[in-house]
Formats: sequence, C-alpha cells, structure tokens
Amino acid sequence: MIDFEQPHLRTNILTGEKVLVSPHRYKRPWQGQIEDDTEHDLPHYDASCYLCPGNKRASDIVNPIYRGQYVFKNDFSALLPDKVEKSFDIANILRADAERGLCKVIIFSPKHNLTLPELCREELLGVVNTWQQEFKSLQRNKWVKYIQIFENKGAIMGCSNPHPHGQIWAQQSIPTEIVKESSQFKEHFERTGKSILIDYLKIEMEENKRVIIDNAHFLVVVPFWASWPYETLIISKRQVQYITQFTEEEKITLADTLKELTTRYDNIFKTSFPYSAGMHQAPINDGKHPEWHWHMHFYPPLLRSATVKKFMVGYEMLANPQRDITPEHAAQILLDQPIQHYKTL
Amino acid sequence: MIDFEQPHLRTNILTGEKVLVSPHRYKRPWQGQIEDDTEHDLPHYDASCYLCPGNKRASDIVNPIYRGQYVFKNDFSALLPDKVEKSFDIANILRADAERGLCKVIIFSPKHNLTLPELCREELLGVVNTWQQEFKSLQRNKWVKYIQIFENKGAIMGCSNPHPHGQIWAQQSIPTEIVKESSQFKEHFERTGKSILIDYLKIEMEENKRVIIDNAHFLVVVPFWASWPYETLIISKRQVQYITQFTEEEKITLADTLKELTTRYDNIFKTSFPYSAGMHQAPINDGKHPEWHWHMHFYPPLLRSATVKKFMVGYEMLANPQRDITPEHAAQILLDQPIQHYKTL
Ligand SMILES: O=P(O)(O)O[C@H]1O[C@H](CO)[C@@H](O)[C@H](O)[C@H]1O
Ligand SMILES: O=P(O)(O)O[C@H]1O[C@H](CO)[C@@H](O)[C@H](O)[C@H]1O
Repeated sequence: MIDFEQPHLRTNILTGEKVLVSPHRYKRPWQGQIEDDTEHDLPHYDASCYLCPGNKRASDIVNPIYRGQYVFKNDFSALLPDKVEKSFDIANILRADAERGLCKVIIFSPKHNLTLPELCREELLGVVNTWQQEFKSLQRNKWVKYIQIFENKGAIMGCSNPHPHGQIWAQQSIPTEIVKESSQFKEHFERTGKSILIDYLKIEMEENKRVIIDNAHFLVVVPFWASWPYETLIISKRQVQYITQFTEEEKITLADTLKELTTRYDNIFKTSFPYSAGMHQAPINDGKHPEWHWHMHFYPPLLRSATVKKFMVGYEMLANPQRDITPEHAAQILLDQPIQHYKTL
Repeated sequence: MIDFEQPHLRTNILTGEKVLVSPHRYKRPWQGQIEDDTEHDLPHYDASCYLCPGNKRASDIVNPIYRGQYVFKNDFSALLPDKVEKSFDIANILRADAERGLCKVIIFSPKHNLTLPELCREELLGVVNTWQQEFKSLQRNKWVKYIQIFENKGAIMGCSNPHPHGQIWAQQSIPTEIVKESSQFKEHFERTGKSILIDYLKIEMEENKRVIIDNAHFLVVVPFWASWPYETLIISKRQVQYITQFTEEEKITLADTLKELTTRYDNIFKTSFPYSAGMHQAPINDGKHPEWHWHMHFYPPLLRSATVKKFMVGYEMLANPQRDITPEHAAQILLDQPIQHYKTL
C-alpha cells in the first residue's frame, strides 16, 4: 500500500492535473510573512461603504434601501457587453480575440458586518434564489456561452470591501478551467455513460475519509486531489448542469450546506475564514451537456493559523501545486469543528 | 484591427491557455489590501539568519564561512530521495503515486542584505555556474526526470528569509506545467521542424513592442500572453534544452541579462521587487528533446505600487487569469527605467 504520509502525487479528475502532497513538511517552523488578522468589529452600516443601502457608488448611482439581496452591474467591469468579433493572429503565435461579457455584483445582505455563515436560512435561500435568477436572466443573451458565479472573501483574497457580496462574470467564450473540466467530464461520459462526479461521490461516501457534509442533496468533501490546505468541493447528489435546475428543496438544502460549511471554516481558527469560492456549470447556449455536473469549489488560503497562509509560489507556479497537510487530515480538522458559529457560542 | 485597449483574450503558446486582458480596468481605485513595504535596512550579517556564513541551521548543521555561493540539502525538503514505486488507484478516480526527489537550497551570496541586481558580474556568473554544476550533478541520478531551478523573492512571495537564495527541486516525474509546455513544443516542432520560441523571438524582435533586453545571446520580453502585470520571459537566442549547454560567453551574458532585468524591476517602484522566477528546461534521462527550448519566467505580483499587488483569485482561480495593464504598457514602463540601480544613484 502507498503511504500517504510520504511524498506523493494525486491526480485531479476535474482538470487531469496533479498535486504534490508532502505531509512531513507541515512540521517546519514558519518564519515568513504573517497576515493581518481580519477580525475587526464592524458596524451594521458604514457610511463610507459603496455597498451599504442608500450609499453612493463610484458610478454616482445611489443604492436603494434594499432588503435581502441587491444586484447591479459592476462599476469596474473587466468585461464589456459591446459586440466585437475581431481577432489578431501573427503566424499562429501571437493570437488574440476580442472578448465580450457582463460583470455583476450581488450583495448578499444589507448588513455591512455579516458573512455567509452569519446569515439565517431564509437569507441564504435568498442568495441562492438570486444566483438562480441572475443565471436565468444572463442566459437570455444568446451570445453568452459561460457564466461564472463566485465570491472573493477577505482582504487576503483581494476583496476590497468586507460588505458581504459576490460576483458574476458572463462571457462569450469558454474559460480555461472550464475547457479542462469539460474535457475530463466528456472523456468519462463517453467511456461509461455517467457523470464522473456521480462515480466519485459514491467512492467518497464508501471510503468516508474526506466527507465533511452528507445530506439529502449534497456531499461536501475535501477532494482527494485538493491543492489548497482546506479546499472543499460541494457536489449535488442529483446530476444537474445548472443552478437553475435545482428544486425548492434542493435550494433550501444548498443554503443549509453553505451555512454549515462556512461555519466550520470560521471555527477552525476562530476567524472570518477567507476564500475564493465559485460554481462550475456547463457552458450555455451551446447544446446539451449530459456529461456535465454542477459543483462548487472553495479555495481558502489559510494553512497554520488566522494569519499564516499557504503560498502558491515558485515551485507551484513553475511546476505543480504542492500541499503540506494531507486532504484526510484537513477533513478531520473540519469535521472536528462544532456546527455552531464560534461568535454565537 | 483588434483594439488592445478593449477587453480581449490572448493565447499563451507555451501552455495553450488563455489570459483575459482588461486594460480599462487599471483605472479603478484600489481600496483593498496594502502589503508591507519590504524596504528595510538589513545588516551584511545577521546572527539569527540560518543562511549567513558560520550560523547554525534547523538541522543543527553549521554553515561554513563560505564565499560566493553555498549549496545544501533543504532542511525541510518537500521531496525525499528514498526509492518508492507505490501507487494507489480506486476505479481510475482516486489516483496517487509515490513521488521521489531532492530539494536543495542555493545561497547566492554570503552578504545577508544583497539581492541579484546588487551582485556584480563575477558574483552573478558564480550563481549561473552553480546552477549549471548542480544541474549536472543532480542529473547523474538516473531516476531524476525533471529539475526545477527557481527563486522566491520577497515576503509577499512566501520567501521566509531575505538572505539571497534560490532553490532546486529534482524529481522522478514530470510536473504539470512541463507536461503542458512539452506538448506545445512538440506540436510546433512536428509541424514545422523548429522550436516555437525561435519563431516567437523573431516575431517579437520584428514587432519590437514588448522587448526589454536584446543582446548577443538572450531576448527578454513581456510575453504577448503575460498574466502577471510585469511578467517577463528570458529566451536564449540559440536553442538549447539545458543550462548545461551554455558556453562561457553565454553564461556571462546571462549574468548581465539577470542584472539588467532585476535592476529595471527594482527601479519601477524603487523597492526590492518581489517575484517568483525559474527556468524551464527539457525533461532529463529520457531521450533527446529537439523540440524543447530553455527559457526563464519571472512572475512578479506588484501592480500599482510597492505595496499594491495583483490578486489572482476568484475569477482567475475558477476560470481564467485576468490582467489590467496591457503587456505593451508594462514593457514600456520597464523600458523607461534606468539600468543603474536606484540605490546607487
Ligand atoms: O521552501 P520555502 O521557501 O520555505 O517555501 C516557499 O517556497 C515553496 C516552493 O515554491 C512553497 O511550496 C512554499 O509555500 C513557500 O512558502
Ligand atoms: O472585482 P474586485 O473584487 O475589485 O477584484 C478582485 O476580484 C477580481 C476577480 O476575481 C480579480 O480580478 C481582482 O484581482 C481582485 O482584486
């Protein structure tokens, strides 16, 4: 048998790429950069926050006094909706294509100082419903081929405002990570007639070494090939391609799942756990995708404490992601957390 | 013609992947995380530094009173040299393979407070010679198939000690980034009988919009597909596969090239410019690689100032790298810098 406490490589079935696992390295002392602890007492309302109800944004637009969620076009969109079909090609070596898209911001709550685990079920269900509605409405643009729903949480993850919010970027072409996943889904589907994530979740439930949450409609695991120390993957037990296919019951369960997972995260280091999280869904306006299976990634950077993160640099950028703590160990730490948020204990 | 000031995608010929360029976004105000300015007055010798001459390391080994470079086995190696040939496979879905390797640290100079641009030509040539010698000696292990030479510079890049040093990780299998580059090199070589980088450097010299350094033996460009704001690529004008193939004259020119490039970097924000840098070379002990072409990547994170970096998060992790400033603009800023280091002006 392979010894998972010794250096080894694991294969990511969603990208076909590898991660180097070096568990013995977790013991080394850390003398490098220490981040600020992001734990501050924030007010419910901040007059200088451009996301709070009634405040003015960079575009001079004034936010309504919204309740629940509020969605608007990103004032600094990386993608623009103007029609463009230009391309550039020198000898098949310098290659560029104009890109078209739409960027939106979704505010999760009017309260400046709340985060997902601190919202109640109804508020979280509101977030899930908003994702569903926005997906539906963006999809109506026939030129949109892919929609990325995501959240950057915490200053350490480049988030410039603690007010709870996420983003949606919709675009005309299929981004790199989705190209990789599509080809992996396709390969398995053509060979077996099944979603690779259906087969994967059965194995994870049998092995029961990396499962964090197992409820009626979702399984949450530290994936076997996780790169980030506490990376997790939410998989829907029913194979769907899009968030729009979830039933009322599935949406409520997704809200509960998000609450439990983010609560466990916060409890690990008793801090508002930073991450980038986002759903991967099939391309749209592009035929059927029976091979595709909706899932949601959480990529949190913290490794040793609320202030010491994993640096994906050097070897990781040039060669291969590398992790210190095993996925099984990380799963155990997540499982050991209470499901009540530390702030309310 | 395509308008490079509008959102567009560029293709990376070394990986086949894309980067989203959104130049208009560079104008947005930054309200997010500010890094520490790493500019400190450091001493020549630091009694608490485990890399300074004569000091004791974590392993209790005492460094000799070295001059020039000093190389030792990493006291916290992510890879271990023990022979292992175990693998793990559940249904072709959970897949792992034991990995074998060697990790070394290369100290660039006995002086605690120097960085590459501050070394003189002779000292930099010493660094290049050490890389060459280490490559040669590691290659003698017939089971080593790939050698990654790299440097993480700056606390922001996970470097835990400012004493000038780099690393070498040698391993039994081919890492993900090298698998991608190998397949791109191969595709072009099979189609044209040439190295894709030979064709690329001709185009860059003709276009002359992204060239930073053009000397007898190397071309330095902000690659057309750069992801990081000031990313650069050093390409050898003569197609070689390995650093061991460089002549004396080429090595001296490489030393000069490194000095000029890192000086220009430091001059942009008048700060010790952080980066991860490393060479990509053909796999070894594995037949000939006429398709492969030695090159060196610099991935620096700073975007707007000595304290504001680009965050590769959210959309970037889930979909596609994205950049704000165009590669042409970044190249112009690098070109505008004096080639004398700001500290000596
Ligand atoms: O080996 P070091 O300098 O202690 O560690 C640094 O470089 C390694 C290789 O790029 C990374 O895996 C670590 O995350 C980083 O902190
Ligand atoms: O859009 P924001 O929150 O201002 O910006 C943040 O998220 C974007 C999308 O992941 C990234 O491109 C930026 O680097 C990051 O700072």
